Amino acid sequence: MQARPERMIPVAELTGWDIETDVAVLGFGIAGACAALEAAWAGASVTIFEAAGGSGGASALSGGEMYIGGSGGTHVQRDAGFTDTTEDFAAYLTLAGGPDPDTAKIALYADQAVAHFAWLQEQGVPYKGNFLPGKIIEPEGDDTLIWSGSEEAWPFYTKAKPAPRGHTIQFTGWGGGRKLMDILEARVRAAGVTVHADARGRALIGDNGAVAGVVVRQNGRDITVRAKKGVVLATGGFCMNREMMRMHAPEALRCSTPLGTIDDGSGILMGQAAGARVIHMNEFFVTCPWYPPESLVKGIFINQAGQRFINEDCYHGRVMRTAVAQPGDKVWLLADNAIFGRPMEMARAELAAVGETWEEVESELGFAPGTISPTVAHYNEHAARGKDPVWHKAAKWVQPLAEPPFAALAFTPSESMFSYFTLGGLETLPTGEVLDLAGAPIPGLYAAGRTTAGLPRWGAGYSSGLSLADSSFFGRLAGRRVAARG
Amino acid sequence: MQARPERMIPVAELTGWDIETDVAVLGFGIAGACAALEAAWAGASVTIFEAAGGSGGASALSGGEMYIGGSGGTHVQRDAGFTDTTEDFAAYLTLAGGPDPDTAKIALYADQAVAHFAWLQEQGVPYKGNFLPGKIIEPEGDDTLIWSGSEEAWPFYTKAKPAPRGHTIQFTGWGGGRKLMDILEARVRAAGVTVHADARGRALIGDNGAVAGVVVRQNGRDITVRAKKGVVLATGGFCMNREMMRMHAPEALRCSTPLGTIDDGSGILMGQAAGARVIHMNEFFVTCPWYPPESLVKGIFINQAGQRFINEDCYHGRVMRTAVAQPGDKVWLLADNAIFGRPMEMARAELAAVGETWEEVESELGFAPGTISPTVAHYNEHAARGKDPVWHKAAKWVQPLAEPPFAALAFTPSESMFSYFTLGGLETLPTGEVLDLAGAPIPGLYAAGRTTAGLPRWGAGYSSGLSLADSSFFGRLAGRRVAARG
Repeated sequence: MQARPERMIPVAELTGWDIETDVAVLGFGIAGACAALEAAWAGASVTIFEAAGGSGGASALSGGEMYIGGSGGTHVQRDAGFTDTTEDFAAYLTLAGGPDPDTAKIALYADQAVAHFAWLQEQGVPYKGNFLPGKIIEPEGDDTLIWSGSEEAWPFYTKAKPAPRGHTIQFTGWGGGRKLMDILEARVRAAGVTVHADARGRALIGDNGAVAGVVVRQNGRDITVRAKKGVVLATGGFCMNREMMRMHAPEALRCSTPLGTIDDGSGILMGQAAGARVIHMNEFFVTCPWYPPESLVKGIFINQAGQRFINEDCYHGRVMRTAVAQPGDKVWLLADNAIFGRPMEMARAELAAVGETWEEVESELGFAPGTISPTVAHYNEHAARGKDPVWHKAAKWVQPLAEPPFAALAFTPSESMFSYFTLGGLETLPTGEVLDLAGAPIPGLYAAGRTTAGLPRWGAGYSSGLSLADSSFFGRLAGRRVAARG
Repeated sequence: MQARPERMIPVAELTGWDIETDVAVLGFGIAGACAALEAAWAGASVTIFEAAGGSGGASALSGGEMYIGGSGGTHVQRDAGFTDTTEDFAAYLTLAGGPDPDTAKIALYADQAVAHFAWLQEQGVPYKGNFLPGKIIEPEGDDTLIWSGSEEAWPFYTKAKPAPRGHTIQFTGWGGGRKLMDILEARVRAAGVTVHADARGRALIGDNGAVAGVVVRQNGRDITVRAKKGVVLATGGFCMNREMMRMHAPEALRCSTPLGTIDDGSGILMGQAAGARVIHMNEFFVTCPWYPPESLVKGIFINQAGQRFINEDCYHGRVMRTAVAQPGDKVWLLADNAIFGRPMEMARAELAAVGETWEEVESELGFAPGTISPTVAHYNEHAARGKDPVWHKAAKWVQPLAEPPFAALAFTPSESMFSYFTLGGLETLPTGEVLDLAGAPIPGLYAAGRTTAGLPRWGAGYSSGLSLADSSFFGRLAGRRVAARG
């Protein structure tokens, strides 16, 4: 038996089942954990197979932040003085979904996100409950609520009333995702879910048009797993699979750092082998932590033509996705002495030029005379009145770059810390049912997280916490649905 | 039997074969015609099934122009004084292929394109043999050789020595594609190929991992076609299938005019149902005939930020693909009295503002003061010395826009004539063999033309004649390969 993700194995080829379970979950990131929990609570026997040595996946690499709002606001939002209607939340998610938002998932999540937040707390995920203002990437302390997207930035605020929606697990410093996964892992084990680590899903097993199980590689041999109710694919995206990146999202290969653990696309391939469609496979998230210090948001980014290309106060990932789409191999952030501060070491930005005049900076960067300096002059002229008529940066981030010395920081996707992961994948119903090429659910096959195209599906619309929110919420729905299968 | 492209029908479900042939070709555009010809000449019995009432497909809507060069040049290129090495030709095709060029197809085509041109002439395709200089979209007369890509434009000329490579069929006016298809149809019929019109491929028939035939809808009933050597999918792209456009290339839906006949993606879906991979599904060609008059190339395009975004002398489709990627819903072409001329009526450009000064135009367009005027001032300052240091437009297209009155022409993707077709599709070997999810050929399945991702696979790299060249050349190879199958 040659087991590989790209081929579904007919049950007739098997000599027997090594393991039987109601529900087999592939992947023990947050999507798999939440699917397993709900399926187990609904009475199904559940087995998780995780290719790595333990739980976590890319979820454990994250900040442990969830994008949550609507229903008037979470108690944290309300305590901080923010109301957040379901309509505004849905409107924001729709903009964030780009040219093809998933309206069914948006409607459901916008309506139920606050209840999902309560559920997370019931699982023991702690939240300090305070609001941390400012323009930050992740709290350095153990704070909860932050502005984690483009809510206050043009054009988003014109369509959806802004509210901060990033809810961060109580954890001091960056990287609360590990703690989040530890808590959920404990809940999964308490629910009686069987967990196999170092167990990699190799191929689905098909029986007359339905998915009947999965072949798993463990301890050097292939074992056959009968999944009586179904298989949940939650193996993440494909940022670590260069061949898939080449085929679908070659633009991302300009960037230095795939952000994942295994993320080899095997879940997507297994789904395709079962007849599933894939959508938006070219889309990816990318960012570079170009601030803190937040004063740099008052700077302006330019491309190789000396032109601005975005309002710098929108979400850092939106800024950097747009930066990667610019011609040339790098972009520059221009700052004056009043706002300058070195970005974090990890950003690997280069101080490319310093000068007493913008003409000097221009020349030192090797630009033609009059390429950068008029861009700054025009920006400064309007900034003196708190305006940015071209890109609509909000007034509080707009001030003339007029205090020498002046500096240009270079950000190079291939060299600086540009980390990316994929957003395209299997198309699913909100219930996690995987759709075939004709748009009909494939019996016995479910998926969640970045194996699917979910709420986050447009690189220029990402907000921190959107993938964890999508993966956990729709992971839960997938778990409930598979457990209910007859 | 429910026959639909998204599901391959197992041969066991059939009650018998209605038609038997060695090779079944789906689609009678240029890819299908060339595949059928070579297969028939190799001794196979060949049957073409075309969903429309007759031959042509999108090929017949084209200008009948082929992108040909290399090997020192065609006789037309050489007579006009151009040499064109295989290396330069391959280098250009590589740039045109974007971030994931198909190096195997490029190497083969660069080497054999001149021989392919001779083959076309042997089939009776007439070429006047002259060179028509200038910046044109298609000859208005019956001329042959034109500059049909971005060869002389930055950055292409920096990597590949320019030569004109658009070889147009002898035909007075636009639209020689119909004549080209009439000639090839006659050759196909002379070769003894059976042609069924009004016969739509509905589903492939599979037999133990191989493609064994196809179900075709004809006269209101489904007929089963046994294809003993194989099936060639040549049904075009998917620009007319809004659901597929939504899933894969939603950005193109901003544009007004899908350029196709049937192009419903059915060939791609049939391939996927047989286990094929799809690649670069987000890529599309788009253009708007913003010139003639060619003097407009001396104008400058700006986006809603008042910024230029491309060297206007590159291929019109590259200009317009970049225009569609700009923020906002339109772009403007700025021209002065010295170069102004109305674009063709069919372009549906709007004369959006006229003024005695650029400030007046800026105001009339509703831009903030200082948004457009400095862009023009900066352009003019360098243009006075024949330079474009920002976007590198070639000197012959650079002159100050300084003679009033000044004008802005608006081009709106959703309203002007922005026509598009898709470039993503099945991944094939140069032989037309369709690759499965694991990258191995699927026995009995071949494809060519826009059902595949071929030489044209990057919207910003398209050149006129590239799709016809790819479809005809690799269609021929597919026909030879399928005929040679045991």
